[in-house]
Amino acid sequence: MNNIPEKFNNNDTICAVATPPGSGAIAVIRMSGPESLKTLWKIFKPLNKKLSEENIKSHRQYFGKIHDNGNEIDEVLATYFKGPHSYTGEDSVEISCHGSVYIQQKIIETLVNNGVRLAEAGEFTKRAFLNGKMDLSQAEAVADLIASESKMAHKVALNQMKGVFSNKIAELRDKLLKFASLIELELDFSEEDVEFAERKELFTLLAELKNEISTLLKSFKFGNVIKNGIPVAIIGKPNTGKSTLLNALLNEERAIVSDIPGTTRDTIEDTIIIEGYTFRFIDTAGLRKSDDTVESIGIERTYEKIEKADIILYVCDISKINKDNVDEILNEFKSYIENEDKTFIMVANKIDKLETIPPHLKDMIDLETVFISAKRKENIHLLAETLVEKVKEKNISNDIIVTNLRHYESLKAASEAIENVNQGLVDGIPTDLVAIDLRQALHYLGNVTGEITTNDILGSIFSKFCIGK
Amino acid sequence: MNNIPEKFNNNDTICAVATPPGSGAIAVIRMSGPESLKTLWKIFKPLNKKLSEENIKSHRQYFGKIHDNGNEIDEVLATYFKGPHSYTGEDSVEISCHGSVYIQQKIIETLVNNGVRLAEAGEFTKRAFLNGKMDLSQAEAVADLIASESKMAHKVALNQMKGVFSNKIAELRDKLLKFASLIELELDFSEEDVEFAERKELFTLLAELKNEISTLLKSFKFGNVIKNGIPVAIIGKPNTGKSTLLNALLNEERAIVSDIPGTTRDTIEDTIIIEGYTFRFIDTAGLRKSDDTVESIGIERTYEKIEKADIILYVCDISKINKDNVDEILNEFKSYIENEDKTFIMVANKIDKLETIPPHLKDMIDLETVFISAKRKENIHLLAETLVEKVKEKNISNDIIVTNLRHYESLKAASEAIENVNQGLVDGIPTDLVAIDLRQALHYLGNVTGEITTNDILGSIFSKFCIGK
Repeated sequence: MNNIPEKFNNNDTICAVATPPGSGAIAVIRMSGPESLKTLWKIFKPLNKKLSEENIKSHRQYFGKIHDNGNEIDEVLATYFKGPHSYTGEDSVEISCHGSVYIQQKIIETLVNNGVRLAEAGEFTKRAFLNGKMDLSQAEAVADLIASESKMAHKVALNQMKGVFSNKIAELRDKLLKFASLIELELDFSEEDVEFAERKELFTLLAELKNEISTLLKSFKFGNVIKNGIPVAIIGKPNTGKSTLLNALLNEERAIVSDIPGTTRDTIEDTIIIEGYTFRFIDTAGLRKSDDTVESIGIERTYEKIEKADIILYVCDISKINKDNVDEILNEFKSYIENEDKTFIMVANKIDKLETIPPHLKDMIDLETVFISAKRKENIHLLAETLVEKVKEKNISNDIIVTNLRHYESLKAASEAIENVNQGLVDGIPTDLVAIDLRQALHYLGNVTGEITTNDILGSIFSKFCIGK
Repeated sequence: MNNIPEKFNNNDTICAVATPPGSGAIAVIRMSGPESLKTLWKIFKPLNKKLSEENIKSHRQYFGKIHDNGNEIDEVLATYFKGPHSYTGEDSVEISCHGSVYIQQKIIETLVNNGVRLAEAGEFTKRAFLNGKMDLSQAEAVADLIASESKMAHKVALNQMKGVFSNKIAELRDKLLKFASLIELELDFSEEDVEFAERKELFTLLAELKNEISTLLKSFKFGNVIKNGIPVAIIGKPNTGKSTLLNALLNEERAIVSDIPGTTRDTIEDTIIIEGYTFRFIDTAGLRKSDDTVESIGIERTYEKIEKADIILYVCDISKINKDNVDEILNEFKSYIENEDKTFIMVANKIDKLETIPPHLKDMIDLETVFISAKRKENIHLLAETLVEKVKEKNISNDIIVTNLRHYESLKAASEAIENVNQGLVDGIPTDLVAIDLRQALHYLGNVTGEITTNDILGSIFSKFCIGK
């Protein structure tokens, strides 16, 4: 089934299985394009003999048989969605069949034999975008929504799909357009040397825009963390209970371990969802000074992983802690402890070895510390709460969260262009040069929602979708 | 989500994900039972504000939002199927949502929170049976249809689902009922010693019934083979090219190798579908005389596998064949060669080593032989054709094929009871004793279609279904 044509045609009729791969009670085959209804009629015999291509109603499920040149394939429910009242905005058909892999393949094969093309990844949503059913950032949210595995990721994707983010961008762009129209007016009358755009107002507007975009940009770190999970490195000397801690977290928090097929992750990472946030625990080798070359390489890799982590859990054996080794830790991890982008949490493990935690020990450790017993699963919930707290602190209480790298980069470019406009006005450079930066800023904002886009961008966005969406 | 109640209630409202597990573009959640529509209304906000629980139409797809106590979960298409015009025959609802695992779980969770019970395996189809939408053999065919991986298996399951098999059984049962009513009449007038049932006609009818059931019983071997694949053992001395042959078959025939998740098979078996028939190739250790205990055990296992095979491919190196070792093979496998239930095919491999195949060699081998070169992939298609031919020979050109062990056993019991009736009449035993056997025969025929059944039988049948069907 590799007969995908070289040219990406948006006017033909496409088909794909829309439900997850494999066998189940039912499966749904989707078809979209001008020939959808005509093709359905070639392969579908409704139970109601009076039903015809002419009198079939939109959004109605009709029972009947799918056949391939008279050979019956299955008994199905077929639904016709008359454009533009469909997902893609085009005439569409959905066939709900028995979920055997054989039947799914056979129906697709029959559609292809009748001139329908196999859809490429994301092509249904691409058509929805091209037909104005949604803007680009909403279309991108569809893929995020399907991929979302946690409550937070789902919430952000759903909001984006509903257009909350798009509306914000459109609002910013409108403000900038108003500004631009005044500047363009000045250009038209440039020989007369008039200023239609009141400079003071312009500066206020630019500052406001910069501020709003800056908030959006700042939300990206949080958004990215929501979408891809918060990387947490569990580090510490050998035999301090790092693996026991990970297992305790997995059990105690009744955590959902992600085992959804198709998600490509580093296999040595464990994923735990706590209160709707996904944490990606990164396995590390125990840290100790070593003369052994192989072991040194392992330790070097551990440091590389620490670099990538947002949260570092330093696990130590509380029964072995003293002023000296606390100082050593503070010294060794100074750069991480002082790094505002990282959270360093001391996990004082093995409290089961002590009757009480000596108060001087608490004072001695000049770091945020959680006292636990991984072995006895004591205080694991405190650690989990601390983790969630740290993530929530990163959320700059912004309703709109940027989760998409492409959006982030467009917004960053827009922000830079706006700064250039601002600087240009301050420096009193000619209005026509200011106008160039202004157009750049408008261009980048338009990129986000797809008002301004190219085929390359579209291709790269939709290729990340699954087939059938 | 383990809150399945202990009692299996058929009057409450049930729900399940009906599409294959995992994430995809869309997924379908199914709900059936008296509270379906009411529950939908608790969690669904249609885009069309005028739509209400009262004016919603059956079989219509409505766009709207699913929410859990006001928290939006997804934008969906919801369809209400007013009973009895639904799959189960009850009021039902289907929700077509975005296919993320999170959303699927969340919607199910919301339904459960609103008092809907998680469906057990096959419970939707069980309800369809209990509500008279289909008989038992049709219901069983639904599971077979979903599991079918090959054209033939699909065809047989589809026919059975459509009731072709049920109609045949009903026809047989009707004939027997006619007979039984005459016998019962004789019992009513037993003191008058009259014969309402003309004995000659009765014997003809019984012979006819026995004959028809016998044909159905015979079809079971073929039916089973279609459903589960034809076991083929590739055997032969070491280094005769058995593995190369298997690979050649896999490639040359553009075979579909089954890799559908959920099918539980012996991992060392390879499955190839040729012309719609599934062949299950059984890996065997090379056959050679050995004094080594471990190796002897391996060879013993090979013979056990040969026992289970319907087709035995004996692979030999043609360049090493002579009268003596042909005799040896004929002698060693005599019992299989002479067994009518097995097909023994000689595969003379490595024809690439010879310029031509010496005619005397063909004469010498007194067995069906295919000459091939597995290495050069020569004549592999001839072997494939031979395999298909052998399967087709087993099909006793019967339109109706029994594929289900339960049906087979019921039919066998019915057949035995009919034979007892026949014998009873021949021996002239009292009519009331004949009537007992007659009722047995009716009972077993009724078992097949579910006219006569027990809760235990139903439980065991539907537990084999997937959840959501």
